[in-house]
Amino acid sequence: MLRTHQLGKLNAEHIGQTVTVAGWVARRRDHGGVAFIDLRDASGIAQIVVHDESQFDHLRNEYVLQVTAEVKARPEGSENSNIASGDVELYASEVTVLNTAAALPFQIDEHVEVGEEVRLKHRYLDLRRPEPARIMRLRSEVNRIARNLLADHDFIEVETPTLTRSTPEGARDFLVPARLEPGSWYALPQSPQLFKQLLQVGGIERYYQIARCYRDEDFRADRQPEFTQLDIEASFVEQDDIIELGEKLLTEIWKLIGVDVITPIPRITYKDAMEKYGTDKPDMRFGLELTDMTEYFKDTPFRVFQNEYVGAVVMPGGAAQPRRQLDAWQEWAKQRGAHGLAYVLYKEDGEMTGPVSKNITETELAGLAEKVGANPGDAIFFAAGDPADSRALLGAARVEIGHRVGLIKNNSEVPAEEQDWSFVWVVDAPLFEPAALAEAEGDVAVGDGAWTAVHHAFTSPKPEYLDTFDTNPGEALAYAYDIVINGNEIGGGSIRIHNQDVQKRVFKVMGISEEDAQEKFGFLLDAFQYGAPPHGGIAFGWDRMISLLAGTDSIREVIAFPKTGNGHDPLTDAPAPITDAQRTETGVDYVPEEDDVTEEVNA
Amino acid sequence: MLRTHQLGKLNAEHIGQTVTVAGWVARRRDHGGVAFIDLRDASGIAQIVVHDESQFDHLRNEYVLQVTAEVKARPEGSENSNIASGDVELYASEVTVLNTAAALPFQIDEHVEVGEEVRLKHRYLDLRRPEPARIMRLRSEVNRIARNLLADHDFIEVETPTLTRSTPEGARDFLVPARLEPGSWYALPQSPQLFKQLLQVGGIERYYQIARCYRDEDFRADRQPEFTQLDIEASFVEQDDIIELGEKLLTEIWKLIGVDVITPIPRITYKDAMEKYGTDKPDMRFGLELTDMTEYFKDTPFRVFQNEYVGAVVMPGGAAQPRRQLDAWQEWAKQRGAHGLAYVLYKEDGEMTGPVSKNITETELAGLAEKVGANPGDAIFFAAGDPADSRALLGAARVEIGHRVGLIKNNSEVPAEEQDWSFVWVVDAPLFEPAALAEAEGDVAVGDGAWTAVHHAFTSPKPEYLDTFDTNPGEALAYAYDIVINGNEIGGGSIRIHNQDVQKRVFKVMGISEEDAQEKFGFLLDAFQYGAPPHGGIAFGWDRMISLLAGTDSIREVIAFPKTGNGHDPLTDAPAPITDAQRTETGVDYVPEEDDVTEEVNA
Repeated sequence: MLRTHQLGKLNAEHIGQTVTVAGWVARRRDHGGVAFIDLRDASGIAQIVVHDESQFDHLRNEYVLQVTAEVKARPEGSENSNIASGDVELYASEVTVLNTAAALPFQIDEHVEVGEEVRLKHRYLDLRRPEPARIMRLRSEVNRIARNLLADHDFIEVETPTLTRSTPEGARDFLVPARLEPGSWYALPQSPQLFKQLLQVGGIERYYQIARCYRDEDFRADRQPEFTQLDIEASFVEQDDIIELGEKLLTEIWKLIGVDVITPIPRITYKDAMEKYGTDKPDMRFGLELTDMTEYFKDTPFRVFQNEYVGAVVMPGGAAQPRRQLDAWQEWAKQRGAHGLAYVLYKEDGEMTGPVSKNITETELAGLAEKVGANPGDAIFFAAGDPADSRALLGAARVEIGHRVGLIKNNSEVPAEEQDWSFVWVVDAPLFEPAALAEAEGDVAVGDGAWTAVHHAFTSPKPEYLDTFDTNPGEALAYAYDIVINGNEIGGGSIRIHNQDVQKRVFKVMGISEEDAQEKFGFLLDAFQYGAPPHGGIAFGWDRMISLLAGTDSIREVIAFPKTGNGHDPLTDAPAPITDAQRTETGVDYVPEEDDVTEEVNA
Repeated sequence: MLRTHQLGKLNAEHIGQTVTVAGWVARRRDHGGVAFIDLRDASGIAQIVVHDESQFDHLRNEYVLQVTAEVKARPEGSENSNIASGDVELYASEVTVLNTAAALPFQIDEHVEVGEEVRLKHRYLDLRRPEPARIMRLRSEVNRIARNLLADHDFIEVETPTLTRSTPEGARDFLVPARLEPGSWYALPQSPQLFKQLLQVGGIERYYQIARCYRDEDFRADRQPEFTQLDIEASFVEQDDIIELGEKLLTEIWKLIGVDVITPIPRITYKDAMEKYGTDKPDMRFGLELTDMTEYFKDTPFRVFQNEYVGAVVMPGGAAQPRRQLDAWQEWAKQRGAHGLAYVLYKEDGEMTGPVSKNITETELAGLAEKVGANPGDAIFFAAGDPADSRALLGAARVEIGHRVGLIKNNSEVPAEEQDWSFVWVVDAPLFEPAALAEAEGDVAVGDGAWTAVHHAFTSPKPEYLDTFDTNPGEALAYAYDIVINGNEIGGGSIRIHNQDVQKRVFKVMGISEEDAQEKFGFLLDAFQYGAPPHGGIAFGWDRMISLLAGTDSIREVIAFPKTGNGHDPLTDAPAPITDAQRTETGVDYVPEEDDVTEEVNA
């Protein structure tokens, strides 16, 4: 080793010792022929005192030094309680420059004064900053804790293939030409789903993997073409077993930031979540539940409210909003595809104003505040029309209100252990959704049916829908569970289909022909012939979960070398053009010899 | 859970209890209206006794059962000490068939009666067999132990990208078309080499990852297109630090099979390994070192031995080989590209026979046995000519002799703890080798120079060659180390270049132009400008290492879902053709608009 001690671990115990340390010059102050250098390594910072000008004159920020020095107590009054080594300083006897540093594209400290693109281009400098370094260490710890907990529960880690076959899981596959089989391609897996089910058929019983997954999506904000999930599957389990294991994992992981997860984590049905929060990812750090007003307005003269669904959400203190803010809400709603956001202002003096108030009856107006739970000073927002669309709009308004009104403590300014955290399991989701809806949401519907799977094609219906799910697909509930934290879905799973007949009926509902099914995952159907055990599992979106844990807004902050929104890596400039020779070698332009064609040409 | 107990964990303590178990029917014997069923789960086997014929009549092998039963002591004399639950049997009160099984393609027991292709096609059945299941569990344990040891040494796990840029590391890259940047491609990494070095520049200091890597090679025997390595890198380290860490890892891992690794593991220089064993991967479980006979035969009249190099290896007891065996050795040598294998037989009675004996002088013949260390009854094999080729031939002959003569204990028949194990570090390898040689060995030489890197382009020369490595590339030694176990290279690493000038000079020797270097890994050269610390690391070939540990001959046995020699997966049938729509979407056929061309056409 080029050092005897780590800088951040030096303290008063080392006073009088001669040590050798190594690290980067974080800061240097000259003071009457003496230089004070903050030297930084992965463990922290210590102050080096250099008396010999010839030894410090040429030093610049981020030079890499090896320093032999005597540890001394700092003069009384000059201790620095902000750093672990703040009671001592190191009197250098020898300073060796291990490497120099050119002028930096940005300063390496806690202040970020450049854009993300520049930071990512020089990610190797960005990672020297305290916050990115903290996050990389946190992520490693999360992995460690999850793995140890799973090992303690007899789960075994199995590495599944990543050069594999296209799996139909709702997104496009990345494809890899197979040079040795020209015209054939591998697909990078969207998840280890099929393999983890095959491992259950194989009697592995308890499998996990922190798995790299790939989705070739039109990048929405904050997606990555490659991402990580903690992937778990077990045999002979029921929903409660997986939920209990998930809660143990979350409890251990959140302990890392000093937060106690209270278990059992509450559960809400998908139906309740949609009705009360307008989303299947409810942020339950605050109330403001939606009120279903359909029945209330069933005889209303107001045309807009003569509709399949009318709902309302309250904005506390919203009655005092100036006109331009109310107009901005209309704009906000239009950006979400709605016509606008109807409202009633419940003034402090009890008066009800706003456009809706003039259109509904006096009786309707009189009972309104009580019905929706509004107090004087609040605003009441309405949506009417298609239930799903209207609830989605109100649900989004609810979250926006929560942030604006300050019902959600700001994550980056409040220590984690004092923040509000909302953990909730969403259960009893529908098994199928209309394929058109999934496509509208940007998913690739698997199969040609009118229905597609909400989770995926291998999710079991709840036992009570086993007979009817194909005759009445819209009613069937899935044996599935999603974990939602602060309004983010960070994991989900299900009890799987282990019976090949049930699997075939599900494919049929989804419009996957027997031929197609055999072509796409015949191997899974084959496997199910030979004694597949009942099984189920869960997968956690590791990047998103860690970003919540780390208190960052973007998953890019928790990935060592992330890509930008369009899948580009500013550091390596990947993807990049390839040479003609490489292209030829991939076999991607291979044209099979067709005897018939040749004969025709020759004829 | 669908069970209260695991089968393999039942024992006399449970007698009298009613338990619910689940598993697969491994075997069934009917005996006068009673069925004895060996039920198997991941933990082991227990015997179920079913008295009701209607409950067992329809059961077939590999049916999945849930059984509620009372645990009873087996009748005296019928205990089975081969299984953990052998003192008890379970009297079934209820038998539920959770799933049925069709007729199996092969029996699920310790006997393998089908070819590998069939096993891999039904790998989910193969994994139910005891040996594959044991290996999957062993592999998971190896991962766990390695990770915990590295965490204990302050290493952090960092996940590096797999959709990245082509890295020039001696093999072809697998390429992935980037749909969102038509005409551009990602490359799957051959290793995380560049990223782990960038992490050192980023101050991470101690990194590890069990990383998936990819090489698009013309599959030689026992290679996989995707493979796993334990990848380690650290800052401020020297060769001895990495070697010491590697020894700790190997010690902990080999404990899993009851083998004590004796540390420090011996080291041998590359030069000594080549001279004594004819290979840089010496199998030191036995002696039989090569003898350099060049000097000995310097005045020989025998034309064949008037050569740049003459060497010999002894085959104990080889003088008694019949003529057809000696002929077979000639055939064996010819298959390795040699003309043959000259030999002298040192008969039990002291007579020296064989073709060579007639061609050399009497003095040469008289001193021969002592010089090579042969005893009466031994054969002495010779090779002469190019030193590298001759040593390689003798080295291969040495290993072949070791096996034939029984100097190497058969791994599959001897318990691991009683086997011979040879661990050795090979150090001081050359920094460069002639590019023509690398290409002859099937590697892709990086750059257009006469020389290419033996390890890779980022390996530092040893400090004493820093000034001369580019003026005298053939003499320079690398600051590198390989760990060789039983003649298999299972890991290797080096102290890296951290100085950008040294890096540029290495590129120059390899014929990588500045432009090319900037194009291919300009980001690494850029990074080295900003205070790169001295650093080094190692990577272990995880699949090969685990196959040695597991006592299997093929790495396919230690991979959950391996591919066959040509990169094909018999289970999923990947790679596979893609649809025209998929092909269009990949953007692989995208032709950039070229204004000039368009204008010409329009003109």
